[in-house]
Amino acid sequence: MSEVISATYQLYLTEDESPEGKARGIALEQTVEMPADCLPPDIAHRMVGRIRSLEPRADHWSLVIDYPVAALGRELTQCLNLLFGNISLQSGIRLVHVDWPRSLLQQWGGPALGVPGLREQLGVHDRPLLCAALKPMGLSPQALAERCDAFARGGVDLIKDDHGLADQPDAPFVNRLAACQAAVEQANRETGGRSLYLPNVTAAPGLLGQRLAAARDAGCRMVLISPWLTGLESLRWARDEYGLALMAHPAMTGSLFLPQHGISPELLLGELFRIAGADAVIYPNVGGRFRFTAETCAGINHGLRRGLEGLPAAWPTPGGGVDIKRAGHWKRAYGPDTILLIGGSLYAQGDIQAAARDLMRAIRE
Amino acid sequence: MSEVISATYQLYLTEDESPEGKARGIALEQTVEMPADCLPPDIAHRMVGRIRSLEPRADHWSLVIDYPVAALGRELTQCLNLLFGNISLQSGIRLVHVDWPRSLLQQWGGPALGVPGLREQLGVHDRPLLCAALKPMGLSPQALAERCDAFARGGVDLIKDDHGLADQPDAPFVNRLAACQAAVEQANRETGGRSLYLPNVTAAPGLLGQRLAAARDAGCRMVLISPWLTGLESLRWARDEYGLALMAHPAMTGSLFLPQHGISPELLLGELFRIAGADAVIYPNVGGRFRFTAETCAGINHGLRRGLEGLPAAWPTPGGGVDIKRAGHWKRAYGPDTILLIGGSLYAQGDIQAAARDLMRAIRE
Repeated sequence: MSEVISATYQLYLTEDESPEGKARGIALEQTVEMPADCLPPDIAHRMVGRIRSLEPRADHWSLVIDYPVAALGRELTQCLNLLFGNISLQSGIRLVHVDWPRSLLQQWGGPALGVPGLREQLGVHDRPLLCAALKPMGLSPQALAERCDAFARGGVDLIKDDHGLADQPDAPFVNRLAACQAAVEQANRETGGRSLYLPNVTAAPGLLGQRLAAARDAGCRMVLISPWLTGLESLRWARDEYGLALMAHPAMTGSLFLPQHGISPELLLGELFRIAGADAVIYPNVGGRFRFTAETCAGINHGLRRGLEGLPAAWPTPGGGVDIKRAGHWKRAYGPDTILLIGGSLYAQGDIQAAARDLMRAIRE
Repeated sequence: MSEVISATYQLYLTEDESPEGKARGIALEQTVEMPADCLPPDIAHRMVGRIRSLEPRADHWSLVIDYPVAALGRELTQCLNLLFGNISLQSGIRLVHVDWPRSLLQQWGGPALGVPGLREQLGVHDRPLLCAALKPMGLSPQALAERCDAFARGGVDLIKDDHGLADQPDAPFVNRLAACQAAVEQANRETGGRSLYLPNVTAAPGLLGQRLAAARDAGCRMVLISPWLTGLESLRWARDEYGLALMAHPAMTGSLFLPQHGISPELLLGELFRIAGADAVIYPNVGGRFRFTAETCAGINHGLRRGLEGLPAAWPTPGGGVDIKRAGHWKRAYGPDTILLIGGSLYAQGDIQAAARDLMRAIRE
């Protein structure tokens, strides 16, 4: 077998399964989808995944399969399919690690800006960034723009649409984009700030292209997108075709993160999103409304920042549990190369401009 | 609240959760994403999901939430996000039913051909269709085209790419498309048959459009696509922009189908895929390599065929467990409006043209 991509799975077996049988089944299922005895010998040799190791652990078996890169080609969409497409429909299989071939990482490219590029863009070199979420749905473009103005004057670095703001009648995409971008630009002019507005472009392929073009033409530098709704490789496409920086939202990914099944959040949010082109990746912070542990959050942070064949580091963007009391804690815990995402807690304080300013002060200290 | 979309969830609670608290949390999380006490009263009234009912069942609570259609707009991508986006990241929530507003069904439209249109296309009016999968990866376009020829001469109605055939070096998409479509057309001319070749177009947005255009221009009438890799609404986009019939593959959906979490397969594969535009939906048949029960399969079939505001019925396409011995059984069990998908078992018999002919005879009888 020539160049390979190695995947590590945790296998949780039922009583009627053998580790070897399950491992061989995965190697066939994810490549040729045929019984081994129906295969031409050349294909069996070249295309079927090879079991590199299969070892018992405390509560599972650890399986490493080498897949030929020839089973993948060069597309990230097929990569995801190869690693987990059909076996998502089976039980007790969890994908936890991938050894990425250098050629594929170079092909896919990762974030265009990442940590260094976005720091340059914002002129912020030594502290975590603050991101506020524009909400709630139901407000008019003008009301949302007023909130943008307050956040920008409060010094917030990134002002992103709530990921549920799509193209609803109360604030259609084009009207919201125009009003919010104008408000942020105006505030920047008056304060000398460099805040960015990130519209949510998540949509079907045709509309996604229209919204990316509209955002670029309106002067946005970065957008919000939910790649599990648009397809993972839409990140790469948006980066290459529209030249926009990308903040990725984890909507719809959560079913992959159950115990004993799926893809680990460290791998999906920490590596795959980055490799696909996300400059920043939102994840549910420990202690918030969701269920990630401190260890998982640290693993995602590591995946986004670690050395990976020269790909720029991406920004961990923990959401939830960040407020003025805890901003210093998260800054110390997660380090400067972090975007702290604030949701409802800013709004709870009434004067959101003053609240944002206080929070920025806490982050700067 | 004006027009609503009602969603039924099963809630599986941990010890520290109350059913009312969990239900209210979902209604807020999926719409405004803010604590209720930070909301302007008008927004609280108009936009937050309303709990219509919350009742105990044997092992869970059944929750019905009315979401305002204003929280959705008209896009299917945002519909999915509204119904399950963020709560996919929480535990113990399973979406099992949706009452679809007529206005949205009409907006989304469902399959262009569906059961009646594809029957017309193929000139087959009274029996299940047979679909063969072209495999394995690693073969050249010419070798795949020879298999197409044999299947078409054997009378197979639909000859689809294996869903793992993307754009690998052994059989690049454009070469495979040309060779396979030519082979099927040539066989049709000689036999008077009407077999269709379905190339797999699954790819990132830009490439997806190129592949759809290429398939259409090559004379294909139907393609294969994995909407959980490309985004659900890519189905609708492909239908509207390229006029091709669509067979949807369930790759990557499986993590949603675990117990006590996700979206039921009856709803996702049986309704959402159809509503989004799939003419046929592949699912793992009971008794095959995956884990659907007979009841689940029947539920998917029902969802694909049931009356739904005039949307054409779509074709249930069970894969796995269908061979010459059991073809009659599945024909009786699932009825004529079914596509029987045959994978490896055809290849096991060596002479695939003869095997296909025997199988077609069993299906016709």
